[in-house]
Amino acid sequence: MHLLDWHDVAESDWTSLIEQSLLNGADRRRLENTHLGKSVGLVFFNDSLRTRVSMELAAASLGATSVTVTPGSGTWGFAWEKGVPMLGAEAEHIQEAVGVLSRYVDLLGVRLFASGTDLVKDMQDNMLKQFAAASAVPVLNLESASRHPCQALADAAVLTRHFSGQPKGKKFVLSWAYHPKPLPMAVPHSTLLMAARLGMNVTVARPDGFELDPEVMKQARQSAAASGGSVEEMNRQDSAMEGAHIVYAKAWGGKARYEDPAIEVRDRQAHSDWRVTRHLMALTNGGGQGKFMHCLPVRRGVVVDDDVLDGAHTLHLEQAEYRLHAQKAILSWLWERNKKSSDSGGTVSASSNPAANHP
Amino acid sequence: MHLLDWHDVAESDWTSLIEQSLLNGADRRRLENTHLGKSVGLVFFNDSLRTRVSMELAAASLGATSVTVTPGSGTWGFAWEKGVPMLGAEAEHIQEAVGVLSRYVDLLGVRLFASGTDLVKDMQDNMLKQFAAASAVPVLNLESASRHPCQALADAAVLTRHFSGQPKGKKFVLSWAYHPKPLPMAVPHSTLLMAARLGMNVTVARPDGFELDPEVMKQARQSAAASGGSVEEMNRQDSAMEGAHIVYAKAWGGKARYEDPAIEVRDRQAHSDWRVTRHLMALTNGGGQGKFMHCLPVRRGVVVDDDVLDGAHTLHLEQAEYRLHAQKAILSWLWERNKKSSDSGGTVSASSNPAANHP
Amino acid sequence: MHLLDWHDVAESDWTSLIEQSLLNGADRRRLENTHLGKSVGLVFFNDSLRTRVSMELAAASLGATSVTVTPGSGTWGFAWEKGVPMLGAEAEHIQEAVGVLSRYVDLLGVRLFASGTDLVKDMQDNMLKQFAAASAVPVLNLESASRHPCQALADAAVLTRHFSGQPKGKKFVLSWAYHPKPLPMAVPHSTLLMAARLGMNVTVARPDGFELDPEVMKQARQSAAASGGSVEEMNRQDSAMEGAHIVYAKAWGGKARYEDPAIEVRDRQAHSDWRVTRHLMALTNGGGQGKFMHCLPVRRGVVVDDDVLDGAHTLHLEQAEYRLHAQKAILSWLWERNKKSSDSGGTVSASSNPAANHP
Repeated sequence: MHLLDWHDVAESDWTSLIEQSLLNGADRRRLENTHLGKSVGLVFFNDSLRTRVSMELAAASLGATSVTVTPGSGTWGFAWEKGVPMLGAEAEHIQEAVGVLSRYVDLLGVRLFASGTDLVKDMQDNMLKQFAAASAVPVLNLESASRHPCQALADAAVLTRHFSGQPKGKKFVLSWAYHPKPLPMAVPHSTLLMAARLGMNVTVARPDGFELDPEVMKQARQSAAASGGSVEEMNRQDSAMEGAHIVYAKAWGGKARYEDPAIEVRDRQAHSDWRVTRHLMALTNGGGQGKFMHCLPVRRGVVVDDDVLDGAHTLHLEQAEYRLHAQKAILSWLWERNKKSSDSGGTVSASSNPAANHP
Repeated sequence: MHLLDWHDVAESDWTSLIEQSLLNGADRRRLENTHLGKSVGLVFFNDSLRTRVSMELAAASLGATSVTVTPGSGTWGFAWEKGVPMLGAEAEHIQEAVGVLSRYVDLLGVRLFASGTDLVKDMQDNMLKQFAAASAVPVLNLESASRHPCQALADAAVLTRHFSGQPKGKKFVLSWAYHPKPLPMAVPHSTLLMAARLGMNVTVARPDGFELDPEVMKQARQSAAASGGSVEEMNRQDSAMEGAHIVYAKAWGGKARYEDPAIEVRDRQAHSDWRVTRHLMALTNGGGQGKFMHCLPVRRGVVVDDDVLDGAHTLHLEQAEYRLHAQKAILSWLWERNKKSSDSGGTVSASSNPAANHP
Repeated sequence: MHLLDWHDVAESDWTSLIEQSLLNGADRRRLENTHLGKSVGLVFFNDSLRTRVSMELAAASLGATSVTVTPGSGTWGFAWEKGVPMLGAEAEHIQEAVGVLSRYVDLLGVRLFASGTDLVKDMQDNMLKQFAAASAVPVLNLESASRHPCQALADAAVLTRHFSGQPKGKKFVLSWAYHPKPLPMAVPHSTLLMAARLGMNVTVARPDGFELDPEVMKQARQSAAASGGSVEEMNRQDSAMEGAHIVYAKAWGGKARYEDPAIEVRDRQAHSDWRVTRHLMALTNGGGQGKFMHCLPVRRGVVVDDDVLDGAHTLHLEQAEYRLHAQKAILSWLWERNKKSSDSGGTVSASSNPAANHP
């Protein structure tokens, strides 16, 4: 019912959604007004530019209404723990907040980076799961502590388009990059899983101490085995670049010091030379014909140099654009899927919020 | 022209609006696109979750456009006093702000908790009245210092539905509850007046020093006399619960220390045991079959225990849902009413903002 | 392609847009749903009331979707310099932010008051130009450091209406007013240029040291020469008022101390008597029949007295209302113009975002 991660989604649905994203990109008015009367609630616990704008526009294009909620700005913060008297600043529990919102709308999108200090909890996306459990309508993950499925689908569509439908077997380098702050692991996790699922030969380049979640690495290797791709890791950026068709740069926080962001901020400075330069890009496939990718926002001169980003070999704006096309595909798919389960006797109503039919 | 309080609204309109709310709840697409071309401005001087989301969705469902304004966030704060040079932080006077907005939209909704320290001014809703006086279009009160008519209509619909159209004669307990902050009296006032108007037997349970506004108590007694209900007060929570069909919990500020919130915060702690527990709920009608109501947001473990809220005998999510249905009814009614006054030679235009027709 | 300033817009377009604004004012539903499927991104680096609300409503009325972005609130701040490693608080460069947004929408509106301390840069609107250069879609200036074209068109329509199509030859006084803060010069610049273009006899009254930009004064004189109007300056408010048909009050920052707002705040207090009073208004045409104008927000008792603003001789609310009508005209014109350039072989697509057609 929810889309929190692509892991549990059937290969046929995943493939179809890539196709739908590409069709939406080719004709922006393709699904116009196909979901009139629907509504979407967008809850942003963390800042956003692309995600909020593209979600609001995706909903509007489908004929749906969207409402955006920013806890702590215009509304109060939410409490998450149960069994603890709510005597702090939070005026409402997430259980009621989500319960109420899911009485109003037909789908809830949520951006929720989670704790940032509790590695186990964050890797399992416990807060996202709690949010979803409280909802009576489908929940769409708009980036959590550990996954970013909307970015992954957009990137899969861009790669499929770039390689004329044949990303399989191409070399994809997911390269750690320096950043003054430890960022969430959602994008690198979802990017790795996406590239492996497309059958690409993936190299994860990162300094020691910045390994991705072992469970994600394992999933990616299994996925690559099934798709005909491969996954390897290395701790050097330059050798990783050799022959790369794609260089996907991303900063993320180190697992080793996850519980203490202040120490992490200090120690990560030792790796401030992990920056994509034109010298590194020159090592890519065809003598520098490899493409640079980034999910944005990106720090110029820190993650990547200006001359790379302003050059001809980038896909970053197209990635951002495909967020819009991919999210239209996802919204439409989630609603159609719930409609079908209703037609066949499920509990979810097709034409209106299911809450209205509660006893 | 405005809806600031239900007091001046005819019984036939009130009854009809309850019916309309129930019809909207039974069919969410019932009034879809019946007010195309209309627009609503929503001004929130105070935080909101349910109200803003449900108002934006209500407007959209009717085919109207809504625009939300949050003074102090994305726009400047407003000055309220006249005859005083505006040399402070406020860049605009409420007179111009409302004057301008009412040139843009066909209805203004406003949430305005008012001073919080001047009891007389707040009980009379002077700031709300000043806002409404500056408006050329209907103003809808989205919770003021002393009234919350949208909540009252939603709750009246929920009660009517719950008692299969016969709330009259049922026991309704409005129970004060502890909360770390002194909250506005809008909800308890409107709740009391609503239950009395439905002909319910209302018990207001609150510690001494937390009496509701005497004018409101008087109005409620008059209303009960007319509807066949009753209103009584007591200063114990447990005896109030006995035989209750409905337990409506709500925290509110004490009148005695209204001018000094800091002292109020200290003194109210003596009543921190005013919390709805399963033991209290067990005293209700039919050996614990009474229903728990709350307007939300609610503090778990402070106003009500988790096991009550997570149990089967609650109506709080349905109350929130009916905000949407009730507000559609209200918007439609306000616009139809103004249309009629125009047809019969009034000054308000039917199909567009009246300001456009100003000389 | 963009609308940053009226200077480069042909006289026939300017005249036609005034007419369109008046037609929109006479019939609020005139252009309803004429641009279905279009979308607008509104980026507010500075606070707004009229502009945001009227832009969102203008877009909705045309059938377009709008999305509002407030850098620093719900999204991060943007970096502007190039070649500087982004190690500060800003998470994204304006180059990518605008690049991405212009992949999503069909037009970008932006409010950007710029530095406030670098006079040369601000007078040339360098930040606005940088924003526009990064955009693949038309950019509409919603008030920059030096221009406010939307206000100018609205005011031109109000003046044309007020003088029954004949503003030419009427006396227009643009009067500096005291304000505790040095405000941008966008409105006085655009107002002066607008009144001169309408052929009015313009008097700029301001204390010494508060001259407008010499380039703007020069442009205004050239424009007046062409339209049959005139432009003069004086440093007294009372003599300026004599015989005025229009008194347009506005506070703005002094050029002399532009680089140091703190000193400016201190020194400008010497001119705190520059306030429009009923005594000054009594000096206007016909023994006090001159009209007061202001773009709002206005500080009562500082810029203008309450009795003037609450009197019968004001146009300030009508000016605000015409923002809505003028902006509908502008949006429609920008889209039609880009459509034509597409029909005749240009690169801009008529029915969808041009970014979708990028290679």
